[in-house]
Amino acid sequence: MKFNVFTEMEYIVKSASTLILNVNALHTAHQKVLTEEFTVSPNIITEELPATAGENRMVRFEVTNPGIIKVAYKATVDNSFKTVDFQGQYEMPVAQFDHTIIPYLYPSRYCQSDKLYRLANDMFGNIVNPFTKVIAITDWIYWHVEYLSGSTNSETSAFDTVTERQGVCRDFAHLGIALCRALTIPARYFTGYAYQLVPPDFHACFEAYINGEWILFDATKLVPLNGMVKIATGRDAADTAIANIFGDVELRTIVVSCELAEEAFEPLKYGHVDYKGIAYL
Amino acid sequence: MKFNVFTEMEYIVKSASTLILNVNALHTAHQKVLTEEFTVSPNIITEELPATAGENRMVRFEVTNPGIIKVAYKATVDNSFKTVDFQGQYEMPVAQFDHTIIPYLYPSRYCQSDKLYRLANDMFGNIVNPFTKVIAITDWIYWHVEYLSGSTNSETSAFDTVTERQGVCRDFAHLGIALCRALTIPARYFTGYAYQLVPPDFHACFEAYINGEWILFDATKLVPLNGMVKIATGRDAADTAIANIFGDVELRTIVVSCELAEEAFEPLKYGHVDYKGIAYL
Amino acid sequence: MKFNVFTEMEYIVKSASTLILNVNALHTAHQKVLTEEFTVSPNIITEELPATAGENRMVRFEVTNPGIIKVAYKATVDNSFKTVDFQGQYEMPVAQFDHTIIPYLYPSRYCQSDKLYRLANDMFGNIVNPFTKVIAITDWIYWHVEYLSGSTNSETSAFDTVTERQGVCRDFAHLGIALCRALTIPARYFTGYAYQLVPPDFHACFEAYINGEWILFDATKLVPLNGMVKIATGRDAADTAIANIFGDVELRTIVVSCELAEEAFEPLKYGHVDYKGIAYL
Amino acid sequence: MKFNVFTEMEYIVKSASTLILNVNALHTAHQKVLTEEFTVSPNIITEELPATAGENRMVRFEVTNPGIIKVAYKATVDNSFKTVDFQGQYEMPVAQFDHTIIPYLYPSRYCQSDKLYRLANDMFGNIVNPFTKVIAITDWIYWHVEYLSGSTNSETSAFDTVTERQGVCRDFAHLGIALCRALTIPARYFTGYAYQLVPPDFHACFEAYINGEWILFDATKLVPLNGMVKIATGRDAADTAIANIFGDVELRTIVVSCELAEEAFEPLKYGHVDYKGIAYL
Repeated sequence: MKFNVFTEMEYIVKSASTLILNVNALHTAHQKVLTEEFTVSPNIITEELPATAGENRMVRFEVTNPGIIKVAYKATVDNSFKTVDFQGQYEMPVAQFDHTIIPYLYPSRYCQSDKLYRLANDMFGNIVNPFTKVIAITDWIYWHVEYLSGSTNSETSAFDTVTERQGVCRDFAHLGIALCRALTIPARYFTGYAYQLVPPDFHACFEAYINGEWILFDATKLVPLNGMVKIATGRDAADTAIANIFGDVELRTIVVSCELAEEAFEPLKYGHVDYKGIAYL
Repeated sequence: MKFNVFTEMEYIVKSASTLILNVNALHTAHQKVLTEEFTVSPNIITEELPATAGENRMVRFEVTNPGIIKVAYKATVDNSFKTVDFQGQYEMPVAQFDHTIIPYLYPSRYCQSDKLYRLANDMFGNIVNPFTKVIAITDWIYWHVEYLSGSTNSETSAFDTVTERQGVCRDFAHLGIALCRALTIPARYFTGYAYQLVPPDFHACFEAYINGEWILFDATKLVPLNGMVKIATGRDAADTAIANIFGDVELRTIVVSCELAEEAFEPLKYGHVDYKGIAYL
Repeated sequence: MKFNVFTEMEYIVKSASTLILNVNALHTAHQKVLTEEFTVSPNIITEELPATAGENRMVRFEVTNPGIIKVAYKATVDNSFKTVDFQGQYEMPVAQFDHTIIPYLYPSRYCQSDKLYRLANDMFGNIVNPFTKVIAITDWIYWHVEYLSGSTNSETSAFDTVTERQGVCRDFAHLGIALCRALTIPARYFTGYAYQLVPPDFHACFEAYINGEWILFDATKLVPLNGMVKIATGRDAADTAIANIFGDVELRTIVVSCELAEEAFEPLKYGHVDYKGIAYL
Repeated sequence: MKFNVFTEMEYIVKSASTLILNVNALHTAHQKVLTEEFTVSPNIITEELPATAGENRMVRFEVTNPGIIKVAYKATVDNSFKTVDFQGQYEMPVAQFDHTIIPYLYPSRYCQSDKLYRLANDMFGNIVNPFTKVIAITDWIYWHVEYLSGSTNSETSAFDTVTERQGVCRDFAHLGIALCRALTIPARYFTGYAYQLVPPDFHACFEAYINGEWILFDATKLVPLNGMVKIATGRDAADTAIANIFGDVELRTIVVSCELAEEAFEPLKYGHVDYKGIAYL
């Protein structure tokens, strides 16, 4: 599937600052970045950092003089996903996890799975099929947490959301991840561009590691699962912030878009009658 | 410096379980593991995992039959540390951090630096020399948080400790890390064997990244800084747990020891008149 | 119903201190204290305080000399309760509440109903009959929160318990109260002696104000509802602490008992087929 | 001192609702309400409730039909305050507190003094004179918590503010109260109209009970202490909310004002060289 993605952010820089932006589309086995352009105006030297703490393509640059800067990223991306059938599957034992997977079982800043152990097991512990289990988690979040712009902030965590029952995509993802980890299902945060997201913005959802595959889930059900362009994955929003800013800088405006660059698109969401998960590799 | 370290843990295993233990001494440029033995009785096949999420040498094994198991680790380690002079130094800008360092600026499960930004800057923001700054943080913790066994639990985090003012080495380390990160000083959790720790136990302290070196700090001031044998580093206790257990398992007894394997030992703690930090590489 | 209640507490007093104990059986329209004796040894002048912040009979005294003191309370109490039929009842509107009831709608230290509004309404908002609604709350707590001695402490609140899913009678009561208030049902904390409580201890449960009556509920289901001797009611455990101690004092031992002082006793718990609540006036 | 106070609130009522407003000036020994008018348009029968849970003059009314309502309160108030000299004073022992004072030592929803015991004692425990101690608390809050509109919400409590270091008058008052109670100084929340408050709004500060007097403190230092018209006191904002609303109601606009109704006004704030507290009786 081909998408044109775009973002433009205008910052008011008030002191010498370093910005690390995380808006570039990932290069993966199934996601090709056909063309891309990352620009800062006025022109500044930027550096793409090798990924640490998950998958990402962070770009770092210094702004030494106060003023207004405009950062833009524009790309055409061609990606595909894999469909995985979990009919009749059981959970993979921890003993078989690749070592790189294990940290996605640990509690993290916004996903305090250690505090949700009893709740998660009480609610979802009896579901045998791991795919069905995560579907049940996303359905529960969808039905019991209200999507409410502005109801939460950058400090809100899964422990809050499970009780306060309101939030945005970030909070939905954190809660999904925390519940999975509490059930010994590795889970990680996924940020991306999302086709048909209204209003347009960056999107967050999560991947759960089921029988050897990172399967995509989105408790917001706001967009088709096959309209994503992956920017980053990590343990939670701490690893995958769109921008890490060091200095006195204010975001003035932000624009995000994700458009289809080809004709056919058949929106895909999980139903309740099959066991097919989708994975972006 | 040569040390003999030892730990023995007895577990009551009630169901088929997977254990991941994190008690092996690290191999580093300056820490040689001269001899070591990791045993499980009854005998079980174990697997050492390549490190992820920090430095560590986790050992994973499955116990399929209920019963009592005994895990023991014994090693002779020879390590040394580097002394670094920070007299007259300034903070290294974020723009110069190696990319592997940056995740140690992010908030984590037990180190919610995002919530401590104002406090940390109010308390320590004006100290120019970064080494002095972290010394001031550890001194503050030492004087204002009471070391009180049993006062906290595995869910306690820096956000709690900064107000509740009680805890153990783990809590002291988490608070130190969180305050550093809130001041844009990368910091990570350090677990190890500690010579002269009374009563003997695993110890936790932290490393702050100052001008290109990971410098060791210990807000508990319980042990000499030069009596450590490093087991692991990570973002916080979530990355470096002594044991991650998946299954119905109960810890029955634990023994830990760290003895000097040579004669001379001159205990080293930071004073207030010099600027020399120590780094275990 | 006649009960003999008894408690004895031994304190190590290390500095001049003031103690305010809250263990006396209440005098109410339906609870007669036939005989009682409150003693402190060595002998000290005590003062019973008029009730504030709920119903109670707090006793205050000063201990000027360090040493061991023993406080004992012994009483024979005759009480009765009223059975109220809520078949076909609707909720009383706030506009009709007596003004003394309104503070039991406010959030309090351990019952943060303001943070549980969405959760409570999502889970129980559709139940029309107010008695059935509170029965549903207590049943939910009973089935989904594990009674686990030592799992919580004096700082644990309803906001924690609703997620962490473990606690003792105090936590069960706080959660019940918080959920009621979030549903605009006034609710208050009830402490008392409880017949057949194993192991013997003070007990905590709660009262919900339904159609003009304070109806008793106990989410622990540990004891018959008709075996209670009321000590105090208040907004939560902050108002009704068994002991408020000002000074350096350590509790050494505590004994509590509640025995039937007559022959017949038919234990009463709420069933699911009727609408009869019980109220201790 | 004579003041004209005024407030007008416009509500959009979307369903049958009950409102309890708490904006009337108190009648006290030293505060005379010379004239007042509480109106609801369209005209609705209102009921002034006798005070419970602190001092207040809450007004309750039902709105049965959806629509816009306007509530206005206008009064001319003449009040005075007492100056109390605490030079050379010691703390009154708990044993001498009137029983009505004791609940103001308990932790409450937004003032978790139980969690601040060590912090408060570490920071202020050594100050002997109780008036100086509370002055030190208010000074600390003033210097270390930033007054920042919109930085907190109705769920923010003292436990948050002591670490997050930002808030509005409500948060400043909650933290002051919590610290006092942690030091065994009874403290309560005070809401009122405040002369010279910019921008005009309701104001919150607190009273600490020192040697038998409720002395006024304001950690915001935004207004003169002698320009207050008392509306209510209570354990915290839960007891003294300007409006408790039961039903689907939205606040559309609010206007508050407090004007001097006589000529001379000499603003009074506490200095650091005397020991004179002011009390509104």
